[in-house]
Amino acid sequence: MTEGAQDDPLDALDALDARLLLLLTDEPRLGVLECSRRLGVARGTVQARLDRLVRRGVLGGFPPALDLAAMGYGLTAFAILEIAQGRRQEVAERLSAIDEVCEVHATTGQGDLLVRMVARNNDDLQRVIDEVVGADGVQRTSTSIALSTPIPPRVRPLLERLLTDS
Amino acid sequence: MTEGAQDDPLDALDALDARLLLLLTDEPRLGVLECSRRLGVARGTVQARLDRLVRRGVLGGFPPALDLAAMGYGLTAFAILEIAQGRRQEVAERLSAIDEVCEVHATTGQGDLLVRMVARNNDDLQRVIDEVVGADGVQRTSTSIALSTPIPPRVRPLLERLLTDS
Amino acid sequence: MTEGAQDDPLDALDALDARLLLLLTDEPRLGVLECSRRLGVARGTVQARLDRLVRRGVLGGFPPALDLAAMGYGLTAFAILEIAQGRRQEVAERLSAIDEVCEVHATTGQGDLLVRMVARNNDDLQRVIDEVVGADGVQRTSTSIALSTPIPPRVRPLLERLLTDS
Amino acid sequence: MTEGAQDDPLDALDALDARLLLLLTDEPRLGVLECSRRLGVARGTVQARLDRLVRRGVLGGFPPALDLAAMGYGLTAFAILEIAQGRRQEVAERLSAIDEVCEVHATTGQGDLLVRMVARNNDDLQRVIDEVVGADGVQRTSTSIALSTPIPPRVRPLLERLLTDS
Amino acid sequence: MTEGAQDDPLDALDALDARLLLLLTDEPRLGVLECSRRLGVARGTVQARLDRLVRRGVLGGFPPALDLAAMGYGLTAFAILEIAQGRRQEVAERLSAIDEVCEVHATTGQGDLLVRMVARNNDDLQRVIDEVVGADGVQRTSTSIALSTPIPPRVRPLLERLLTDS
Amino acid sequence: MTEGAQDDPLDALDALDARLLLLLTDEPRLGVLECSRRLGVARGTVQARLDRLVRRGVLGGFPPALDLAAMGYGLTAFAILEIAQGRRQEVAERLSAIDEVCEVHATTGQGDLLVRMVARNNDDLQRVIDEVVGADGVQRTSTSIALSTPIPPRVRPLLERLLTDS
Amino acid sequence: MTEGAQDDPLDALDALDARLLLLLTDEPRLGVLECSRRLGVARGTVQARLDRLVRRGVLGGFPPALDLAAMGYGLTAFAILEIAQGRRQEVAERLSAIDEVCEVHATTGQGDLLVRMVARNNDDLQRVIDEVVGADGVQRTSTSIALSTPIPPRVRPLLERLLTDS
Amino acid sequence: MTEGAQDDPLDALDALDARLLLLLTDEPRLGVLECSRRLGVARGTVQARLDRLVRRGVLGGFPPALDLAAMGYGLTAFAILEIAQGRRQEVAERLSAIDEVCEVHATTGQGDLLVRMVARNNDDLQRVIDEVVGADGVQRTSTSIALSTPIPPRVRPLLERLLTDS
Repeated sequence: MTEGAQDDPLDALDALDARLLLLLTDEPRLGVLECSRRLGVARGTVQARLDRLVRRGVLGGFPPALDLAAMGYGLTAFAILEIAQGRRQEVAERLSAIDEVCEVHATTGQGDLLVRMVARNNDDLQRVIDEVVGADGVQRTSTSIALSTPIPPRVRPLLERLLTDS
Repeated sequence: MTEGAQDDPLDALDALDARLLLLLTDEPRLGVLECSRRLGVARGTVQARLDRLVRRGVLGGFPPALDLAAMGYGLTAFAILEIAQGRRQEVAERLSAIDEVCEVHATTGQGDLLVRMVARNNDDLQRVIDEVVGADGVQRTSTSIALSTPIPPRVRPLLERLLTDS
Repeated sequence: MTEGAQDDPLDALDALDARLLLLLTDEPRLGVLECSRRLGVARGTVQARLDRLVRRGVLGGFPPALDLAAMGYGLTAFAILEIAQGRRQEVAERLSAIDEVCEVHATTGQGDLLVRMVARNNDDLQRVIDEVVGADGVQRTSTSIALSTPIPPRVRPLLERLLTDS
Repeated sequence: MTEGAQDDPLDALDALDARLLLLLTDEPRLGVLECSRRLGVARGTVQARLDRLVRRGVLGGFPPALDLAAMGYGLTAFAILEIAQGRRQEVAERLSAIDEVCEVHATTGQGDLLVRMVARNNDDLQRVIDEVVGADGVQRTSTSIALSTPIPPRVRPLLERLLTDS
Repeated sequence: MTEGAQDDPLDALDALDARLLLLLTDEPRLGVLECSRRLGVARGTVQARLDRLVRRGVLGGFPPALDLAAMGYGLTAFAILEIAQGRRQEVAERLSAIDEVCEVHATTGQGDLLVRMVARNNDDLQRVIDEVVGADGVQRTSTSIALSTPIPPRVRPLLERLLTDS
Repeated sequence: MTEGAQDDPLDALDALDARLLLLLTDEPRLGVLECSRRLGVARGTVQARLDRLVRRGVLGGFPPALDLAAMGYGLTAFAILEIAQGRRQEVAERLSAIDEVCEVHATTGQGDLLVRMVARNNDDLQRVIDEVVGADGVQRTSTSIALSTPIPPRVRPLLERLLTDS
Repeated sequence: MTEGAQDDPLDALDALDARLLLLLTDEPRLGVLECSRRLGVARGTVQARLDRLVRRGVLGGFPPALDLAAMGYGLTAFAILEIAQGRRQEVAERLSAIDEVCEVHATTGQGDLLVRMVARNNDDLQRVIDEVVGADGVQRTSTSIALSTPIPPRVRPLLERLLTDS
Repeated sequence: MTEGAQDDPLDALDALDARLLLLLTDEPRLGVLECSRRLGVARGTVQARLDRLVRRGVLGGFPPALDLAAMGYGLTAFAILEIAQGRRQEVAERLSAIDEVCEVHATTGQGDLLVRMVARNNDDLQRVIDEVVGADGVQRTSTSIALSTPIPPRVRPLLERLLTDS
């Protein structure tokens, strides 16, 4: 089926996908109808594209963007954890139970896990670090604090490149 | 003014805020009316809460959640950059012009900047790393690749704690 | 109460506080009366300021400034300790029982505790390091010796800035 | 002269010195007369001891003990600086001009200078770090933040040991 | 075309390929005819398989396996090089002109290039290291010497797994 | 015996050896007869040289040169392992049982073993790393991924130097 | 006693001591008589000086200077050992029983012991390293090999300075 | 010639050599005659052995063994220097001109030169370190201080092993 071939990730997104995603990035609550009007394509086309983006896993919904600092978690810290042999899975589950742990990657290099966490203040951070480090299977830890965030998480440049490349 | 006192970050969010944000996390496209029905409060209350969350900077909108791997950027890498004296601002601006750079923090520790970036494959990653490292003012770099992401970015546990603590 | 608002740390110290503290830094044994004469303010004002500085925790008394080198402790050394999970409190207590340990901070980074200690000579230092490292729960240690102290502990520049900024 | 021999640092302090210094540590503002009463020795003896302690450099006065956190400098950070060849003196002078730099030691190890500094908050700390790192001659820097201070600067245990050993 | 589909790397090698490659690993100089006899397949099949393995880049020929130690190069050393920004290509070319450099990889981590090199003895090694480190664009180097080689380069286990998995 | 003296490794290879090995490097499947024709020496001389090269351990046969990437193992990674005391032998045996481990050296430096391994993709690599790190006796591991290989394994330059030096 | 005062290390050696020690450094087997002739002082003076140098511990005899490389120990290596808490003494005793260990210092820094050792070749070195690392109480080890020794152990410059300074 | 064969370093020293060298280690000033008496061999044999040990470079004379601490150089320190490309020779010459530098090795690892130096006290050490680090071509330095020397330089165990093995 031709459709199947188009689902190949290498040619997954075309210019129209990019324009649609950029539009929704700027104005997330636009309806399908308004999107079709802005992009100058049929309503059905917009709906089909949205469906396909969701089906392929590109679009995961429109969750609220929350600012943790504004919520009172003014400190962002990173930890690099060295894990005892064969216990990475177990440590990841333990970390998952710590509310302030916001993101964990398993990476190459000297540490096994890169952890992002937040805290309300220094005392709170020490408590969070103690919980993270205290997870059974953690052997060594290196922590650092984000003093500022020159580039917050972003996807827009890749969408714009997609527009240009298509 | 009482309102001003409520804007104090320390008591910014109460249980109703938390319930509202959790509801919108699960079903981001719910309208205000439906939210009020689900939460069992007046429509005006929901609207007032949303307005206040936005005004305080807690809620930054509902941008589409995009999966970079599904978009063809299967590799996530991290770089820790040591910056020459007095050039952190300049390097951050240079990094901002690299599309594949998705996030940058200035941290304590031996490196000045923690960079998250994506790439389509190893060759692409080497090109991206070359661009990142090639920024004037970068003195040393340490890179690593995310082999997996046990905990993707999340806020839900902190919202749930808010519900419990309120 | 207005007084309570003034106790807010953000506007805790004004120029008169700074002038008073600088005066007492230069001549610690001055009485309240002489301070009021030098500063050209009422005796009661000086007393009120001193009381408030103490109440807020800014002024902790006038302990004797002792020179450890002159007391025979000619060597100052630093140790960075990595602590086993969940034992930082216990190690800190153990360190507290070692007389030559003069200061301990829990820090971010690869080490958990930064320790300042003194010793009479190299043999004595090795004994002290052995005691510090031998505390249960210490996993790794890195030590260094202060060859000189270009800037001894000081507060004066911050007081003078306070005077300028007020 | 016998007096000269007593000035030898190795037997500089005896039990009476220790008792006097401990008394003044607990109650710094005691006069000589009251000290003599408490210690059960002649007023002249107390005065002679104080004079000798000052002459030998052991006692440097009774400066006010100020709490920087209470003054609004809630963050304490440490930096280890690697200095370009032959410029340690110059860097130390430059650091001396930064108000928030509270203490600097030249140490063995990989870094040349260990710097203690304070800041009002994370933005302020980044500015201070930028000033410290921006000093000409600084090649590399590693920074960390004190999350807590289990043992604040102290001398008492060494005085008490002196009492015991004498 | 069906053939094209078979060239897909994911199903590139089947059990017969594996048996053929293992046979040639054990007895590299076997002719096609003898291979066909040993494997119990037609001569044309062996030839077709060999042709396809070469066409796909799996089989690069049958070069002589030379033992550098037996040739007088008794020392094997590794160097990890940190390269100045934008000069990795240039350094790689420079390394290529050093006869004793036997292998170079660009890697993630703190070093940019991992270099394997050989030498006749310690003096010779120091000369080789000097040449490697002396390449313009090399900023820092870390070297180590192989004391033994518990597992020399090998492919056989992967071929055997292929046989099992097919 | 004169022959024995010639077996001394220091003068093991002469220009004719080098020419013969270079010829076989370029065209590995040449027969002895054709080699003798190309080199302009007697057939018996070629045979004698080949025999001696094998006897001395210089020439280990003509195994097939296989491209692991073309076989589907697109990722090459390196690990540096720190081994618990007295267990290097045991760990090496354990590593030998992991198919994807292609090469292991015991080296000087901070790590005991330098491991080269391959994998089909990131998930596969994480599994392989888990197996490598999970070997009993491995204490710490640092991993990196080869982004490219500017100089694949080669011997030719040393053969050509031999030709020049002879 | 005046003699006792002269034994003070600060003025221990004068120009005549230095001239005598330099003479014996150049021609160790000279007798006292010949020394006195060369230096132009009385025989008794030379003998008195020698006696005093020995009594003070400056001169420890005239042991044969042996070249370990010439004795067949062509490799010199260094190890930095991290020792488990409270076991430095025990490890030092264990190292003392390894013949190839030629020198051990306890140092500041990340390692507890700096070890110099020799070996006949790489295999021998690996065995020696295994013995050193295998000592109970050794936690981590970093090893390096001396490729050359630009400045062998020497004392002469300090003797010559003594001559100049006196 | 038979003599030449005996000069081969592999069988350079036999039991008699070892006994002779051990005897001279214990009593360096023994004459040839007394040595021959103690060892129970002919005087000519002792002399021949001594001559051969000197000719082979094993025995370099009988220089005075000086104790630097007893000479007033109570501090021993080590520095690991990273050298700019192509300047190791130059730096070694510069170090050679610093009297307090007692030994320099070029090593594998991250540092290029391992330096042993002595100093009279901390101030003196800082001056010496400044001179060492200030040598043109030195890029980074790591210093440590010897707190004690559990095993001073020694050769005796290797001589005794020689006696056992012969």
